[in-house]
Amino acid sequence: MRIVLAVVVMRAVCPWSRLARPPVVAVDLRWLRRVVSTSSTSGGHGHAPEPHPQEPPLVELVETPRQTGHHLGPPGPPPHHKEPLVHVGVDSFVSRVTDPTTGHVVGPAERLAHLLEEIELADRSGLYSFGIGEHHREEYYDSAPPVILAAAAARTTRIRLGSAVAVLSAVDPVRLFQQFATLDLISGGRMDLVVGRGSFVESFPLFGLDLADYDSLFTEKLELLLALRESPCVTWSGRHRPALTGQGVYPRPVQDPLPVWVGVGGTPASFARAGQLGLPLMVAIIGGEPRQFAPLVDLYRRAGAQAGHPPEALQVGLHVFGYVGESRRAAADTIFPGWHEMFTSISRERGFPPPNRAAFDATSGPDGAFFLGDPDLIVDKLTRVADQLGGVDRVSLQMTNPRLAHEDLLRGIELLGTEVAPRVAAL
Amino acid sequence: MRIVLAVVVMRAVCPWSRLARPPVVAVDLRWLRRVVSTSSTSGGHGHAPEPHPQEPPLVELVETPRQTGHHLGPPGPPPHHKEPLVHVGVDSFVSRVTDPTTGHVVGPAERLAHLLEEIELADRSGLYSFGIGEHHREEYYDSAPPVILAAAAARTTRIRLGSAVAVLSAVDPVRLFQQFATLDLISGGRMDLVVGRGSFVESFPLFGLDLADYDSLFTEKLELLLALRESPCVTWSGRHRPALTGQGVYPRPVQDPLPVWVGVGGTPASFARAGQLGLPLMVAIIGGEPRQFAPLVDLYRRAGAQAGHPPEALQVGLHVFGYVGESRRAAADTIFPGWHEMFTSISRERGFPPPNRAAFDATSGPDGAFFLGDPDLIVDKLTRVADQLGGVDRVSLQMTNPRLAHEDLLRGIELLGTEVAPRVAAL
Repeated sequence: MRIVLAVVVMRAVCPWSRLARPPVVAVDLRWLRRVVSTSSTSGGHGHAPEPHPQEPPLVELVETPRQTGHHLGPPGPPPHHKEPLVHVGVDSFVSRVTDPTTGHVVGPAERLAHLLEEIELADRSGLYSFGIGEHHREEYYDSAPPVILAAAAARTTRIRLGSAVAVLSAVDPVRLFQQFATLDLISGGRMDLVVGRGSFVESFPLFGLDLADYDSLFTEKLELLLALRESPCVTWSGRHRPALTGQGVYPRPVQDPLPVWVGVGGTPASFARAGQLGLPLMVAIIGGEPRQFAPLVDLYRRAGAQAGHPPEALQVGLHVFGYVGESRRAAADTIFPGWHEMFTSISRERGFPPPNRAAFDATSGPDGAFFLGDPDLIVDKLTRVADQLGGVDRVSLQMTNPRLAHEDLLRGIELLGTEVAPRVAAL
Repeated sequence: MRIVLAVVVMRAVCPWSRLARPPVVAVDLRWLRRVVSTSSTSGGHGHAPEPHPQEPPLVELVETPRQTGHHLGPPGPPPHHKEPLVHVGVDSFVSRVTDPTTGHVVGPAERLAHLLEEIELADRSGLYSFGIGEHHREEYYDSAPPVILAAAAARTTRIRLGSAVAVLSAVDPVRLFQQFATLDLISGGRMDLVVGRGSFVESFPLFGLDLADYDSLFTEKLELLLALRESPCVTWSGRHRPALTGQGVYPRPVQDPLPVWVGVGGTPASFARAGQLGLPLMVAIIGGEPRQFAPLVDLYRRAGAQAGHPPEALQVGLHVFGYVGESRRAAADTIFPGWHEMFTSISRERGFPPPNRAAFDATSGPDGAFFLGDPDLIVDKLTRVADQLGGVDRVSLQMTNPRLAHEDLLRGIELLGTEVAPRVAAL
């Protein structure tokens, strides 16, 4: 029986580390570290920078492209102009919902059950992907997206699933890789790991992080994440996580490599970094006009081409607020109450003027950021925006709304899957 | 549109922390800290202690009860002697398996698919619970148990699910609580969070931990975990995790409180600690004779009673290796090849004498640690062991074996659920 003890004290050590031969890591880590030294906006001012949310303030979205669109070279046509063939999906922030008719507040257990129904419907309706956000706030139920995604994987058969976005800055990349590798195995290779710096700042105090490290946390953790997907046994050291000296990280995913997307808002350096790393790009557009992102997407493609990445590696996805109804008017009437509730509350807290229907209609107009309307309108808008941005590979409509009834959300998903997606695919 | 920015920078702050009024935490944290100061075995020797695996060396299992059974008072009958009414379940370490007939190596995707089938069958067969281990080794596929449990929750309707065990020492209790709260919501209140110090040591270098902190890591993280389940907003500080100053931890689980069990091996202080905290106890018995644990279980119950916890709070579960076949001989023949393979490999590496059938048969005999046999034999053994330990509430058979074919594992689960569990419940 003493043999049992031997099992207990055996250590799993990668063969490479036994031979003191570090694994080959394809990513040029020096490059990544150089990029961050130019991407920080804190400069030498000696105080903590404001966070750059993945969903940035409007003023930045509008102005930065003009300031920095030519960052890496003279203006000109994008090096990679694709036909607008767009995969259509849904993203969800799993927020608390109040039923607009009954006033019933949908609590977390019921909301998560609804969410799984929504994902199952998206799967059956032919949609390409479903993404889950990450928040650490009382009114959201998505603080543990890998857990939600696993339940979704177990209930679906074909739809791709992913994070939207995973707040990489606040998590251990080893745990995140283990979770997404396991998800990839359970889903049969249907996972996309979209990582970002996070659009809310409450992760920072909750996990003991300093906002002064906002960018270096992300850069360093992305570096380690990419090394982990390249090899199970990594030798690595950094500032924000204990060193690895060749320990094995298991299990390994079905997809090799596991797709890692970079979720960005309006920060030019983030677009350039994703391009230079040859990682697919997920752009969150929550304000302004989608066409204003063209110079930033161009920057991404130039940076990628300059680093030698083939055009097919440089995929572009858009994450936008949206909803599909039977008519434009019906869609707007369905979405407006939640929009109004949300912005009424905020305007009271902040002393802003109260929101109104005119502002809402402007945001959801033909050039606005909100993809709202009947299927024809959504198809037109997707086609036009894809063309304006030199081609996009994916668009995910984020339909979360605190006054959207479960049945209406299901109807929106079904219309997106059965009416919008096939027509966009056939374009 | 500037309103959008306001959403981004809003912070979720618990009402209590706004009022600078710390939440009431029922757990007496001073007590927990005092216990650990007496439970360390490193003494003042000035070097890192050997780890105390959750599955400890046999010599400790055999000898410690005699040394410490009277730790908290004179010998006598246990204060709480329950009728042997035992809930029966399965635990799984998700190891790589080689099919004994075909030689086919079951890789991680296939193994996880098999595992989910096993859990679905356990659910249908009437078993009470299914637990998933946590390992960070190449030959195991369970480094992310919350992800696996979520898939299991989505595929089952009544069986309880849990960790077996979650290596609390190596994880952030905030993340673990968020994951298990989400699991509890998805499963409709079917989760048990069994936490332990881990039976393997590779978590320590992988997550940058020092084995010298083996016990203080667990004590401190258990303290925080219990505070988090008591209140969403905790004010806390410790050595091994950044302080919390009232940030909210969401979502909240269905079960209030979320059941937190302490997984123990043979360390007396661990039994005493669980009792004094009034937490249910999961005892891993992997060697020796189950009856040798009676003094330790007695210690747990005395410690609990002394701390004022009612008998019904002091549940005892057993985690044992086991398998049920049509006959004792059939069960042994099914299990022996994997047992032999495992211990042949180890004996070669370590220079031990090779394992043989006689040793295997002794381990799985009437008083041995291995619950192996036909349904009658398992019922008898469960009944006898429950009686020897003054009543046990749960027994989970850990059936993982690297040469056990999927079909044979399914058959074992079915027999356990349909033949063993109902008869044990009726006793």
